[in-house]
Amino acid sequence: MFDVSACFAGIVGEDHLVVGARIPQEYGHDEALTAPPIAPGYVARPATAQEVSDLLVAATRFDVPVTPRGSATGLSGAARPVAGGLVLSFERMKAVLEVDTENHVAVVQPGVTLAELDQEAGAVGLRYTVYPGELSATVGGNVGTNAGGMRAVKYGVTRHNVLGLEAVLASGEIIRTGGRISKVSTGYDLTQLIIGSEGSLAVVTEVIVKLYPRLVHGATVLAPFETVEGVLEVVPAIVASGLSPSIVEYIDDRTLDAISAFLELDLGIAEKVRASAAAFLMVALESRDKDRLDVDVEELAGLVVDRGALDAYVLQGSAARTLVEAREKSFWTAKAVGVDDIIDVVVPRSQMPALLRRTQALAETYHATVAGCGHAGDGNVHLGVFCPDDDQRRKLLSDVFALGLELGGALSGEHGVGQTRADHYLELEDPAKIALMRRIKAAFDPAGILNPGILPAAV
Amino acid sequence: MFDVSACFAGIVGEDHLVVGARIPQEYGHDEALTAPPIAPGYVARPATAQEVSDLLVAATRFDVPVTPRGSATGLSGAARPVAGGLVLSFERMKAVLEVDTENHVAVVQPGVTLAELDQEAGAVGLRYTVYPGELSATVGGNVGTNAGGMRAVKYGVTRHNVLGLEAVLASGEIIRTGGRISKVSTGYDLTQLIIGSEGSLAVVTEVIVKLYPRLVHGATVLAPFETVEGVLEVVPAIVASGLSPSIVEYIDDRTLDAISAFLELDLGIAEKVRASAAAFLMVALESRDKDRLDVDVEELAGLVVDRGALDAYVLQGSAARTLVEAREKSFWTAKAVGVDDIIDVVVPRSQMPALLRRTQALAETYHATVAGCGHAGDGNVHLGVFCPDDDQRRKLLSDVFALGLELGGALSGEHGVGQTRADHYLELEDPAKIALMRRIKAAFDPAGILNPGILPAAV
Repeated sequence: MFDVSACFAGIVGEDHLVVGARIPQEYGHDEALTAPPIAPGYVARPATAQEVSDLLVAATRFDVPVTPRGSATGLSGAARPVAGGLVLSFERMKAVLEVDTENHVAVVQPGVTLAELDQEAGAVGLRYTVYPGELSATVGGNVGTNAGGMRAVKYGVTRHNVLGLEAVLASGEIIRTGGRISKVSTGYDLTQLIIGSEGSLAVVTEVIVKLYPRLVHGATVLAPFETVEGVLEVVPAIVASGLSPSIVEYIDDRTLDAISAFLELDLGIAEKVRASAAAFLMVALESRDKDRLDVDVEELAGLVVDRGALDAYVLQGSAARTLVEAREKSFWTAKAVGVDDIIDVVVPRSQMPALLRRTQALAETYHATVAGCGHAGDGNVHLGVFCPDDDQRRKLLSDVFALGLELGGALSGEHGVGQTRADHYLELEDPAKIALMRRIKAAFDPAGILNPGILPAAV
Repeated sequence: MFDVSACFAGIVGEDHLVVGARIPQEYGHDEALTAPPIAPGYVARPATAQEVSDLLVAATRFDVPVTPRGSATGLSGAARPVAGGLVLSFERMKAVLEVDTENHVAVVQPGVTLAELDQEAGAVGLRYTVYPGELSATVGGNVGTNAGGMRAVKYGVTRHNVLGLEAVLASGEIIRTGGRISKVSTGYDLTQLIIGSEGSLAVVTEVIVKLYPRLVHGATVLAPFETVEGVLEVVPAIVASGLSPSIVEYIDDRTLDAISAFLELDLGIAEKVRASAAAFLMVALESRDKDRLDVDVEELAGLVVDRGALDAYVLQGSAARTLVEAREKSFWTAKAVGVDDIIDVVVPRSQMPALLRRTQALAETYHATVAGCGHAGDGNVHLGVFCPDDDQRRKLLSDVFALGLELGGALSGEHGVGQTRADHYLELEDPAKIALMRRIKAAFDPAGILNPGILPAAV
């Protein structure tokens, strides 16, 4: 019998293929809390698109399912392999190929981390604005899950910031989509179709991302409110103000307490205010001009206090950065305090108060606790769910996701469906759309070898 | 034999179906200069998504090709029907269903014109920012072709401003995609796939668009340059400045002369400057604050003069509007002076000088003349082609499109492929992508009834 390993090794070289029991456990999972490690059969580290192409052709021939993997910082299990399958790890494809200052784009390989890209773009005064919590995440992984993050309220999510791709089809064909251009009207938008497909349509081997001028002056306003609803009700007014904030987040008191303790953080909030605050609004402004920033911050502080904030703390420089970084760490904090699951329902921003109020009521029904924070400007809430009983938690999540859809939203704003939400998604999504997505999947990958653990192929 | 007309009339009512010779000629074409009118067999004016669904089911049964039609202001022939086919005209589905000030979205039917939407959004201080030249265009038509326009440099094109759709599949299934949310990570992005598909994948029956706060203060800087290349070389610096212009256009002297004459326009440019200027840069700035606008305009004017502009005229209020509107009218001007075709190649903005220089050389080879203007900030040039010989013109276009691709661009930035560019597109595009698009088309529309006159079904 022909040896599959020998074939894969012949493509990437023996040094870049790990097989069976020698595969470190980290390749068997991502950061999804409810998806335990699974054992892939092979981990290959290709160096070129051609090697990826050869691997896909071989995988098709031997019927080995393939899961692309960046840093595996995802929260939905989309990078969790199939047992016995092939993991395509992009550790060796991590070059920033070019930062093009004339066209304001960077051309990168999928294994580049956000931290690395930020450093290279920053060196020439530019910025890749997609900013999910985890900067060790790769651009390729972000493309797979359509990652969002705090700056989405101003700059959009991954799909709004990717202009082109090189991608390998299951057939081994290498295609290029888009380019260093932000508009194109020729044919179907394959770039957008592949983004967010969680590795199920094609394997991305190069990404052209949009860069923006880096605005050097920034400040963050932290405003405590007596209720979570109070925070959320002020958000539409902030967006409407035209101040164009780069970050609009809310954090509930339980989460801020946990983050502060976890990071030994002192935000300098008066004891009395802290005691009566149930939630906090965090808004970041940025500008090319320090004087304009100061005027805008003043206006913003006035706006939130007029609309019910107990106070407004203006943080600049390192204090502002510390707060934003602390917010970033909320996932790790939640994990440290033993959260059972984390969800990221998205609804129209005007529906956030209703979503949170009704979610609290649902949680009580199931004797569960939920707490969290979220991208208030986008209607995207991140809730830690404390409910150790698997069956109860599943029902609670099902109810909360259904509520999100009822309010005009979706079960995930940025984490994705992956392996962990596939059953819920299938339960709630229109069967006509699921069937259509399955036909699209078949149009790309008729043998079904690309990430078959996730929808629409799975379940 | 069963009467197809009676079936269609039974769905929309006899008053809303026109058949055969009674169909006005306007339903047989759009504004594409090289696609003469063709005679559809039926024009139906549905009032609801359900009627659209019933029509598609009937059209499938009787094998009648279907072409959706808005105002038919498109320039590529995408709304030109198939002979004997069914035109779905959205004249009766033209309601702005809601302007949602909390979530900054509007929910509209496809037949709403941009002018109507602008009026309704403007009444509450908001704006739909997509701004192609022709405001009688419909939102549905813009979705079909992924229309762009002058404000794309700041706000993006149609696909960046549509958050959700209601669409009818060829099967008659009515689906909803996206919502009043700007981020979602569940399943494939059907919204983006349908946008720009020129009616070949699904028929859009409702659109959720993003609105922005209307910035009330605006000014336009008009700067003459000695050469077209001079104009285009300054563009990357303007984008990099962080001034965030809402419009960055260039106009060559021939085009400005024609527009000025056609509209009897006096821009107040000194005779001497006018005589030595070969092209003009037009940049619009906007702000919430008049003082900031004035400072920014000053900075912009300095920047362009430092980089070779012969002068910088600052136009405010009605003079600024007149200039922008004149630029909008360039298509009508070109048509009035007898242009043979108009193309809109897009390239990375740094490649615009090369594109124009080499296009001029190609034009000379074919004894043709090209002149134009374009969205300089986006690398998207609109060129009027004067070359009456069909065969020569076809060769010239083929060379220019190939040049656009060679420079990293595409043959159309916003006009689309439609019926008129299908052969060129097929000649230049990667066959693997064409084959993939055909499989996607089949996943949506297995019988091929939706707009089969265009790619990927056609040719």
